Amino acid sequence: MPTRAIVTFGEAMVRLTPPNLQRIEQTSVLDLYIAGAELNVAVALARIGEPVAWVSRLPDNPLGRRVVLHARGHGVATEGVEWSSDGRLGLLFVELGSRPRATASLYDRAESAFAQLDPGVFDWPALLDGARALHTSGITPALSPACAQAAAEALGAAREAGLHTSYDLNFRARLGTPGQARAAAEALAPSIDTLIASAGEAAAVFGLDGEPAEVAPALRERLGVTRVVISRRIDIGDGLQARRSACACADHEVVQADSPEFALVDPLGGGDAFSAGFLSGLLNEDPKRGLELGGAMAALKQSIPGDFAIIDPAEVDELVHRGVFAGTRR
Amino acid sequence: MPTRAIVTFGEAMVRLTPPNLQRIEQTSVLDLYIAGAELNVAVALARIGEPVAWVSRLPDNPLGRRVVLHARGHGVATEGVEWSSDGRLGLLFVELGSRPRATASLYDRAESAFAQLDPGVFDWPALLDGARALHTSGITPALSPACAQAAAEALGAAREAGLHTSYDLNFRARLGTPGQARAAAEALAPSIDTLIASAGEAAAVFGLDGEPAEVAPALRERLGVTRVVISRRIDIGDGLQARRSACACADHEVVQADSPEFALVDPLGGGDAFSAGFLSGLLNEDPKRGLELGGAMAALKQSIPGDFAIIDPAEVDELVHRGVFAGTRR
Amino acid sequence: MPTRAIVTFGEAMVRLTPPNLQRIEQTSVLDLYIAGAELNVAVALARIGEPVAWVSRLPDNPLGRRVVLHARGHGVATEGVEWSSDGRLGLLFVELGSRPRATASLYDRAESAFAQLDPGVFDWPALLDGARALHTSGITPALSPACAQAAAEALGAAREAGLHTSYDLNFRARLGTPGQARAAAEALAPSIDTLIASAGEAAAVFGLDGEPAEVAPALRERLGVTRVVISRRIDIGDGLQARRSACACADHEVVQADSPEFALVDPLGGGDAFSAGFLSGLLNEDPKRGLELGGAMAALKQSIPGDFAIIDPAEVDELVHRGVFAGTRR
Amino acid sequence: MPTRAIVTFGEAMVRLTPPNLQRIEQTSVLDLYIAGAELNVAVALARIGEPVAWVSRLPDNPLGRRVVLHARGHGVATEGVEWSSDGRLGLLFVELGSRPRATASLYDRAESAFAQLDPGVFDWPALLDGARALHTSGITPALSPACAQAAAEALGAAREAGLHTSYDLNFRARLGTPGQARAAAEALAPSIDTLIASAGEAAAVFGLDGEPAEVAPALRERLGVTRVVISRRIDIGDGLQARRSACACADHEVVQADSPEFALVDPLGGGDAFSAGFLSGLLNEDPKRGLELGGAMAALKQSIPGDFAIIDPAEVDELVHRGVFAGTRR
Amino acid sequence: MPTRAIVTFGEAMVRLTPPNLQRIEQTSVLDLYIAGAELNVAVALARIGEPVAWVSRLPDNPLGRRVVLHARGHGVATEGVEWSSDGRLGLLFVELGSRPRATASLYDRAESAFAQLDPGVFDWPALLDGARALHTSGITPALSPACAQAAAEALGAAREAGLHTSYDLNFRARLGTPGQARAAAEALAPSIDTLIASAGEAAAVFGLDGEPAEVAPALRERLGVTRVVISRRIDIGDGLQARRSACACADHEVVQADSPEFALVDPLGGGDAFSAGFLSGLLNEDPKRGLELGGAMAALKQSIPGDFAIIDPAEVDELVHRGVFAGTRR
Amino acid sequence: MPTRAIVTFGEAMVRLTPPNLQRIEQTSVLDLYIAGAELNVAVALARIGEPVAWVSRLPDNPLGRRVVLHARGHGVATEGVEWSSDGRLGLLFVELGSRPRATASLYDRAESAFAQLDPGVFDWPALLDGARALHTSGITPALSPACAQAAAEALGAAREAGLHTSYDLNFRARLGTPGQARAAAEALAPSIDTLIASAGEAAAVFGLDGEPAEVAPALRERLGVTRVVISRRIDIGDGLQARRSACACADHEVVQADSPEFALVDPLGGGDAFSAGFLSGLLNEDPKRGLELGGAMAALKQSIPGDFAIIDPAEVDELVHRGVFAGTRR
Repeated sequence: MPTRAIVTFGEAMVRLTPPNLQRIEQTSVLDLYIAGAELNVAVALARIGEPVAWVSRLPDNPLGRRVVLHARGHGVATEGVEWSSDGRLGLLFVELGSRPRATASLYDRAESAFAQLDPGVFDWPALLDGARALHTSGITPALSPACAQAAAEALGAAREAGLHTSYDLNFRARLGTPGQARAAAEALAPSIDTLIASAGEAAAVFGLDGEPAEVAPALRERLGVTRVVISRRIDIGDGLQARRSACACADHEVVQADSPEFALVDPLGGGDAFSAGFLSGLLNEDPKRGLELGGAMAALKQSIPGDFAIIDPAEVDELVHRGVFAGTRR
Repeated sequence: MPTRAIVTFGEAMVRLTPPNLQRIEQTSVLDLYIAGAELNVAVALARIGEPVAWVSRLPDNPLGRRVVLHARGHGVATEGVEWSSDGRLGLLFVELGSRPRATASLYDRAESAFAQLDPGVFDWPALLDGARALHTSGITPALSPACAQAAAEALGAAREAGLHTSYDLNFRARLGTPGQARAAAEALAPSIDTLIASAGEAAAVFGLDGEPAEVAPALRERLGVTRVVISRRIDIGDGLQARRSACACADHEVVQADSPEFALVDPLGGGDAFSAGFLSGLLNEDPKRGLELGGAMAALKQSIPGDFAIIDPAEVDELVHRGVFAGTRR
Repeated sequence: MPTRAIVTFGEAMVRLTPPNLQRIEQTSVLDLYIAGAELNVAVALARIGEPVAWVSRLPDNPLGRRVVLHARGHGVATEGVEWSSDGRLGLLFVELGSRPRATASLYDRAESAFAQLDPGVFDWPALLDGARALHTSGITPALSPACAQAAAEALGAAREAGLHTSYDLNFRARLGTPGQARAAAEALAPSIDTLIASAGEAAAVFGLDGEPAEVAPALRERLGVTRVVISRRIDIGDGLQARRSACACADHEVVQADSPEFALVDPLGGGDAFSAGFLSGLLNEDPKRGLELGGAMAALKQSIPGDFAIIDPAEVDELVHRGVFAGTRR
Repeated sequence: MPTRAIVTFGEAMVRLTPPNLQRIEQTSVLDLYIAGAELNVAVALARIGEPVAWVSRLPDNPLGRRVVLHARGHGVATEGVEWSSDGRLGLLFVELGSRPRATASLYDRAESAFAQLDPGVFDWPALLDGARALHTSGITPALSPACAQAAAEALGAAREAGLHTSYDLNFRARLGTPGQARAAAEALAPSIDTLIASAGEAAAVFGLDGEPAEVAPALRERLGVTRVVISRRIDIGDGLQARRSACACADHEVVQADSPEFALVDPLGGGDAFSAGFLSGLLNEDPKRGLELGGAMAALKQSIPGDFAIIDPAEVDELVHRGVFAGTRR
Repeated sequence: MPTRAIVTFGEAMVRLTPPNLQRIEQTSVLDLYIAGAELNVAVALARIGEPVAWVSRLPDNPLGRRVVLHARGHGVATEGVEWSSDGRLGLLFVELGSRPRATASLYDRAESAFAQLDPGVFDWPALLDGARALHTSGITPALSPACAQAAAEALGAAREAGLHTSYDLNFRARLGTPGQARAAAEALAPSIDTLIASAGEAAAVFGLDGEPAEVAPALRERLGVTRVVISRRIDIGDGLQARRSACACADHEVVQADSPEFALVDPLGGGDAFSAGFLSGLLNEDPKRGLELGGAMAALKQSIPGDFAIIDPAEVDELVHRGVFAGTRR
Repeated sequence: MPTRAIVTFGEAMVRLTPPNLQRIEQTSVLDLYIAGAELNVAVALARIGEPVAWVSRLPDNPLGRRVVLHARGHGVATEGVEWSSDGRLGLLFVELGSRPRATASLYDRAESAFAQLDPGVFDWPALLDGARALHTSGITPALSPACAQAAAEALGAAREAGLHTSYDLNFRARLGTPGQARAAAEALAPSIDTLIASAGEAAAVFGLDGEPAEVAPALRERLGVTRVVISRRIDIGDGLQARRSACACADHEVVQADSPEFALVDPLGGGDAFSAGFLSGLLNEDPKRGLELGGAMAALKQSIPGDFAIIDPAEVDELVHRGVFAGTRR
């Protein structure tokens, strides 16, 4: 484990998407990407130079190896992956939409090797040795009781070892009810330092409506965590572009930032790139810069096909400082 | 023939389109779709659950079989297709444009098996047995005198059998003059219950300018048909999005509706999806719902590559009720 | 149900294959095909003009609808498909190999809607009404106890209704042991008229080695079925081409035939095309012609990408009569 | 017209082929190539450095312009193309086969701009001014009476101007009967110096069976032309490779040559590349080298997708001298 | 050389672009285009019917031949290309961006055959014989001292022969500093009739900020050339569309024109299409029409993938006269 | 550096190949692979589980990062890569051929960041710390004098540190003369333990003709190295398949082995996979097993598109033990 690495924990899937806005019923080919909220966060962190490791469980077959090939290629340490001979790799079929047709996800992740993990198998003290932060999300406990237990163990061990812990609410209606998501977050809250959520998730799961600057402190109080980060996507003009407005609220510290404007080439993974950027800033003790990094990284991610933020630090910095569209560089 | 089916009659073509907004002169591959106004209507009806049959004439070769494979796959009954050993399958080369380059169609449909049909060969009483409606469009009589005669026979037989008859004006400048289109419509009008046209077609063919609510009653009076439906596309903002405004006018009944906003991924087949939605509503005795269904189905169709409205009833219903863009579902 | 149709019963999957002999670990796109032994048989029968229906269970999602779109498109009646809101569509990842790399299949079909079927839900007397034959294979009982029960019920109902019943051994080591396959076949044998197997399967499952003409009578005696058909692929020259040698053995009737030579473009579905051809001949009371049809259809299938035998009767007839490669027709 | 150019005269088409050995009924894309026997000859000549011009008639639309773009790009002078506002561009759908499935062509060239040409419109003396040879093929007179007349005029004018004239029999069963092909050749023979045919064509059209060395003199005597070239493809081993054996017979001169061995990637255009090579050698007064060049060029062409021999003189020379497969050059 | 042709002089490259807005780090295929400012101008001129020739130096390998194939195919005379056995073909990797990710170019053109040219090798009097105009751009002198010398010789010879000379500033920060670009322009100015630049380039290279109508006369005075043309892209609405505003300023003549609105499918080559249109108008003694043609051609170009303006005169005329988006033509 | 790792040293390139046997002059897309002899060896070693590191120099741009992404993804440690701000990434254009058209390589690797390396910049003692072997090839010294010096330093440092050193002759006629290759090998020989070459290379570079078992001892004596491995490809039947026959000769040890038969899907990288397999066996003190592993790995590699041996240890073992083609596994 590289010294002072950030560790993320969660499931990865192969994502299959028809090209060129086609529908599944008409396409004869599917584009193959790798996806998974916590792996997306790890890749985004690695791309901006943060040492990062990803802990998961994968089936020992070509699909599982493909996941590691991509994670490792982008610079994520994968020694913490447990290989299993049973279970499958979860799949995610995504139809990218265009107004008024919504982007639609068809999860096929049941019975995955990850969902069937044996929580005790992860030696968290060893996996977290030398690390400075642990990140997971609400998807993990929603996958299976075993995953919920593993998330609790991971967060507990991280807390005990003095690491910063973060948790993205990541509410997925296809994986559970709002009540279940709330219960999971509440159960884990004592081990969470920073909770991240979209305004829509906060409303759906906790009934907290309003602007990020209103929701963040309310949710912080509700859960008793150190810090809450709330972001909201705001449509611009006729809705073909948007920006992300975010607020991070801690004890004596409330910071806010708006992202650059972006058009949606591929909406998936934007929130994960935001989380990565925020964590990077936060762990360098600059949450304001975290919001700026997160906003810029999410905006860049959404211009890139697939779930991964295939970016480099220079363009993130340039976007943070410039804040506007560069046009054509040559 | 499934009981109470809607029967459509017209030509189908293989449509060939360069991918990724390329031009024919530069592309090395062509995407293959199936197209044809009346078949598009049939497919859209089948996709929302209406029993539907399509009557046509196809050459007995791989291209003709390909048409039936797609029509049948989407649930359209094709027993009424006459197979011919002579003639060819019409082709349609389409370059999708982007401002300011227009989407351009190059018809290559002359001498098709359909255009060379023998009108007497269709046993209309049998083909329409048990059906409740017949639909065709102005393209059919414009293809050849034999096609014009077949359209007249089909509409006459349908009228005689008590079916609802509908006719989409579908004026195509590449197939004939406005005067020819007007003459064809006037000749068939005594057998038509519902005439459907865009505002642009009504202006070009009948010299009737104005909003749908003005044009529809004027054209109804002019042709003496029971009902006229006029729709118009209205650009929004900078013109990258649009909505469709439509009016259906019958004796003591004028209904109007605007469609959801949509961006144009592929403009072809939008009008046919609209006609399908309207017919479905009308035949269920709710013309207002027909306009809403038509607007939603056309908006969805235009987000999908190809001429076919590859939709399902649930998303149409959701769009009709919600009316706005769903973003990302997961 | 079309009068005198053949009914097949089994699972269908989406098959995903990297293009151009790539491996799953390197490809960025996957070609999408529909596959499934009994559906492959149904499609092959439909393509040569036999009325045919397919009974199965599919999830009500875009993947399930995609299966029906293809089955129906090729002319297979699908009214007997039960739609389910639970369960998934099975997937099959296939890497096409090239010497010395084997073609490799990665099944991901566990927990499918089909495997979770409720056997009692199929009203077999109704589904088989008017039919003349039922076909299923050893894959069906290997999928789950419920599937095994459904296969037994289907064969039993068919036998009771006087239909011809056929069963392709289709041993899949990834689905069960040879002993399990043997037990399943023996349990169903009293309801089976014709059992079809490759020589390799007969050896693996029943320990019967030898040429088709030796194995067929031995296996017939062993199982007590009316007729056994055994085929074997024989490499030619350096092994880049092959032919299929088959023998069908019934009471006073032993017929044999060799297929045309073929090169392997896509090996999957060849056995299913053979079964379809044999059944067509047999049900027209000419088992010799069945072997010839089966050999020709399997040889053609293996020249076509995907599992389906996208052929037409004329080319099958020509190949049966000519027996050799035509080169270029123009 | 470049001094001493070779002029070819005939129709060009857009050729559409499903990729990866797919069938038309299953493909969702078609690869676009340009094809046409006499244009293929012109391109092959241009590629080996012979000045060459192509005379034809094309519709003034993107498809027609695409043809000229490719012809001109490969170095063929196209000033002799007549542009027409009527008529269409002929199409050729080709399914590349694999044993035992034949490569199949579906012509869709009826009513083409070329077939509807006005023979008198070509100013042959001007078009042939400064040229040294004219080449056309049996496809041209088979397309329409007008084309037959134009071919006669072209050959007549060339003969009168002292050019060498050549005619590839190119019998196409889809365009006419053997009797028609024979009649056309016999009518044109008085204006032909060199007639080129495959052994199969000579057998089908003139009933002359046998080896090239037997057929060539017999056909020469029959038609009264100066020179006859006959070639035959000979399968090697299991038939996955072949070579071409050819004989050119003139008054006191009989030359023979075998081509290098080749595997068939794309069989179309091979004969045209052979004709080009032979003409190049002949016009440089070395018919033996013509056979060698033709054999090498046809062998190379058949390793290249599409109808065009996209080769360069160095690799032709190397193959003529080496005669065997080079493997990998690096 | 066609009489009265326009001659352009500069480097061409193979441009490689990941499809579908992918990044180089993720794509497994690259789309291949031909690019190069002066060749782009030549192609755009040829497409609207102007006789045009392109002078350059290319390596004698498949990449070099590919360039000529495309140039010649679009109608550009390439006899003035010098073939070299040394040097490479320059490459240009382009990632098309989407807000806020900039379109990014990675030049790989060092040590190209063109950059290594021997200036004395071009026989400019012969190359310009019969021509009426010469065009080059600031990229040429920036490539190497030898290229700078060749540009000077070309412009000098053109001036001497009485041709119109034009020079597009084409400042590329990756090829040199603003000071170097200024020095090159100033050194060549005595031989330049018309200088073309974007407002951004004029600001970067000469420190002249402002609207085209302000910058053009100022720069004209500064350089002492006959005519200066300045254009600026103006974003519209939310910046997903733009138009180009241009001003041409000569002695007693200032003309201005705005282009039609356009969306950016592919931004590269837009300026070159503008230059081509302007030159065509100017050389026909109508600089106002030149701005209109240039604006329309650039707008069309930017709707087309790749650097080339694959347009036809009719659609340019229609756009100039209509000025707005045609939608769908059929 | 993982303990006991094998270290390889050499250049990597982006390899660009037209799909489907197309030529560069006709393709509109290029498939992108990563290539480079010593990186290929590293990837093949990593794929079979050997800890391995690759030392090189790459430009800090998307192409350079792409190389590391793939190397790291397959498990190769890349911390020893030096990133440079100057120089380019070498490119390799490859046209895959088919009889009689040779597979052709167009190197575009001049002025690469690697060729311009500063030899002193590599801290070899640190890079080799803990390693057990160093591998490089004759390509490295052929690239530039600086590369030759770096290769000498690397081999010298490895020898000093007691590592096994290996050197693949890898003669490339496009990079130098046989004499230069011989001189380079002779100069490095005192630091080389194992020299690997093909029979063809041994003949071209050292004039040693004959079977591997003859050439290996002769070359060993000539160069004075501990061990020489010679392999030769032997065509089978009609030459569409081959096998590799190899001999490794050391002091009292001569071992020989033939590979399984293979067909050539992509010939590049086969020798590198062979070297990897041999080294793995040798370093585990079983050179006979090394030849078997190498033969099996090269045979598998040549069935896979691209330069990398994307294999897994299980299939290598199975092939070594089985030795024949598995057909279809399911």
